[in-house]
Amino acid sequence: MKNIMLVIEYDGTNYFGWQRQPKKTTVQGEIEKAIKIISNEEVNLMASGRTDAKVHAFGHVANFHFNGRIPPQNISKALNAILPEDIAIKLSKEVDMDFHSRYSARGKTYIYRIYNCETKSPVERNYSYHVKDELDMDKMIQESKKLLGEHDFIGFSSTNSSIKTTTRRIHDIKISKQDKIIEMEITGNAFLYNMVRIIAGTLVEIGRGRIKVPIDEIIASKNRDMAGPTAPPQGLFLKKVNYLNTKNFDEFIDI
Amino acid sequence: MKNIMLVIEYDGTNYFGWQRQPKKTTVQGEIEKAIKIISNEEVNLMASGRTDAKVHAFGHVANFHFNGRIPPQNISKALNAILPEDIAIKLSKEVDMDFHSRYSARGKTYIYRIYNCETKSPVERNYSYHVKDELDMDKMIQESKKLLGEHDFIGFSSTNSSIKTTTRRIHDIKISKQDKIIEMEITGNAFLYNMVRIIAGTLVEIGRGRIKVPIDEIIASKNRDMAGPTAPPQGLFLKKVNYLNTKNFDEFIDI
Repeated sequence: MKNIMLVIEYDGTNYFGWQRQPKKTTVQGEIEKAIKIISNEEVNLMASGRTDAKVHAFGHVANFHFNGRIPPQNISKALNAILPEDIAIKLSKEVDMDFHSRYSARGKTYIYRIYNCETKSPVERNYSYHVKDELDMDKMIQESKKLLGEHDFIGFSSTNSSIKTTTRRIHDIKISKQDKIIEMEITGNAFLYNMVRIIAGTLVEIGRGRIKVPIDEIIASKNRDMAGPTAPPQGLFLKKVNYLNTKNFDEFIDI
Repeated sequence: MKNIMLVIEYDGTNYFGWQRQPKKTTVQGEIEKAIKIISNEEVNLMASGRTDAKVHAFGHVANFHFNGRIPPQNISKALNAILPEDIAIKLSKEVDMDFHSRYSARGKTYIYRIYNCETKSPVERNYSYHVKDELDMDKMIQESKKLLGEHDFIGFSSTNSSIKTTTRRIHDIKISKQDKIIEMEITGNAFLYNMVRIIAGTLVEIGRGRIKVPIDEIIASKNRDMAGPTAPPQGLFLKKVNYLNTKNFDEFIDI
């Protein structure tokens, strides 16, 4: 038996998210179905996490235990020949048996895209949050820096009673604007449910001038109502999953 | 009667191009249908040109003669409320009766996008030409400069016997790369059928090293077979239509 790791890009527009669900089209469901077709094996894909409906990924990571004969590095090609065109396996390789996409992960990088223009954009509609109002970029960048470091982000999460701790560490956050696209890139050791979208929603409200409370005070309040709304899913991209101290993975960390 | 000008963005993925066709979904067809719904008028939209199936536009321009009561600047909002979400009217305004989207146009700017990476991209699939091979960007940029100025571009066009002259002037061409996206932006006084896609296809072959003949020699040959293949439609975006010497239009030239 081999442990196979996949790096996956997908356009989440037409999926009910990552996780397999009966009678719903999901990314996990499609990939498991494709693995069954190429190898006749029913596998259980373990992913670095879930993504919601309409959320995209440039480099989601999943692994599965495999008894098939296809050489590991060729699995990606075999799957890409079968998968719908909005899902692509960018890399497949054999990894140590103790590698687990989720438990071995040391961090993730997300991108949140905002289309900032008075009129809506058909081309950007599935890949950004449309914000008509003028945004104070300087203020957004300045406030975003207060998210860095370790904090209890319970005020920036949707209810999820199953988790032990709501403390997370943000390593880096960058906000840039090019033409009408504002891109927020955020790297952390882990994220609570909806955390990136709530951070994006809060920063947009700060940029609009509707939220005037400094972000450090919002964090300290631990109160979901102090933060902004959950920004819509289509602006969110899981850029990559980081596996530090694992020299095997250097090569796909920067895909 | 009023002459109404529209600036239109669309995602061409799901359309059989701009031009109205019986029993096919086209951008012109959808907009004319929407105008009929908001005003009960059957209009004939005159556009700055046609775009092929799957080609996109950020700022296509069309005009129509209108007897309806809706104030010109509000027509965009009324249409956007009805149009499918992959078409948006960015601006509607009354213009002089002698304005014609096509005959008054003094030039156009197109963008051609290439996704340059070994693996395909689900997110970029409908908005770029996927090129796996490494491309010599310096060579492409250097050769592209030879397209500037006035030339007979008959070798860079698909057969179209109805036109009088095949001489066109390229004002500007810029090629830039950001991450895996190569963007070619080209401005000219007018373009022959498929000309931008053939220029893109030729530059890609030059970047690959498959075409070694300098572009000025390809132009001089007036031979379609000397140029590269027609690059696929989904990489092409009509960025804007230029109406020089028409002070009324300054405001939308840079949309």
